[in-house]
Amino acid sequence: MKKILIITGDKCDDTELFYPYYRLKEEDYHIDIVSFNKGVIKAKHFFEIEADAAVSEVDEKDYDALLLPGGSAPEKLRQNEYVVNLTKAFYLAQKPIAAICHGPQILISAGVTKGEKMTCYPGIADDLKNAGADYIDNAVVVSKNKIITSRRPEDLPCFMREFIALL
Amino acid sequence: MKKILIITGDKCDDTELFYPYYRLKEEDYHIDIVSFNKGVIKAKHFFEIEADAAVSEVDEKDYDALLLPGGSAPEKLRQNEYVVNLTKAFYLAQKPIAAICHGPQILISAGVTKGEKMTCYPGIADDLKNAGADYIDNAVVVSKNKIITSRRPEDLPCFMREFIALL
Repeated sequence: MKKILIITGDKCDDTELFYPYYRLKEEDYHIDIVSFNKGVIKAKHFFEIEADAAVSEVDEKDYDALLLPGGSAPEKLRQNEYVVNLTKAFYLAQKPIAAICHGPQILISAGVTKGEKMTCYPGIADDLKNAGADYIDNAVVVSKNKIITSRRPEDLPCFMREFIALL
Repeated sequence: MKKILIITGDKCDDTELFYPYYRLKEEDYHIDIVSFNKGVIKAKHFFEIEADAAVSEVDEKDYDALLLPGGSAPEKLRQNEYVVNLTKAFYLAQKPIAAICHGPQILISAGVTKGEKMTCYPGIADDLKNAGADYIDNAVVVSKNKIITSRRPEDLPCFMREFIALL
């Protein structure tokens, strides 16, 4: 059974956490959600879900892929060393990393964007370019090193289609 | 290409509209959403989407299946003759009908529940039983006449898995 890790936190985009979480459940994958701490995560509008553990407690070796929802959470998460190191570990292990909307902010801080074909929420496109990514304004972009990125909630269908295809 | 019709309205459950809508898009199906009128539908919490047409303007013959999200919308929709007649037409044509949470209230009013194995939100289970359904408290139930029912948002993964399998 595939094991997927989701890193997110309060004020994440509801749909960008909810859709991937239920979609991966539909595939019968095991999903763990981590945040700064174990306990309830409150998305921007209404969706609430339990973080299974603190990000400091998990190891890349226990998972097949990483998923990073957007919203306001990534801007806080990117400042956490465990988040950054964990993300980098997935990249170095060449495991798929899917990031949507503001999720790529974590990839920028993890230093894994250089030379990668990527997209993101338009408001942070300049930051992605400045971090050396080959930015493309597409609904979904898959890089040579298995980074899957999308721009916004409306891209979720093709974002998850590509992510699941890669798994 | 499969064509799916969704009947819903204001105060529907966000996730029960959002997840099926994006999930069916992921399958590359054509989806039309109808409500009392054409125009914006506002789900209970935050999700908004455009109804493509009024329910009075569409015909069962143009679709392969019907999906009925829950929330507070079905209690209003079940009082509309177009909703009821359209739902009955899908049943008589033996096309799959998927209904979650309070969605089965529409099936009760359409008179298509008798002898069908079904589930629903616990709060309306007695109504479903009184309408002659063979009620079962399962995450998803598929009846002999292709009615797929689930209880609540947490059942969405298996609800959509069964619905897509039947399509």
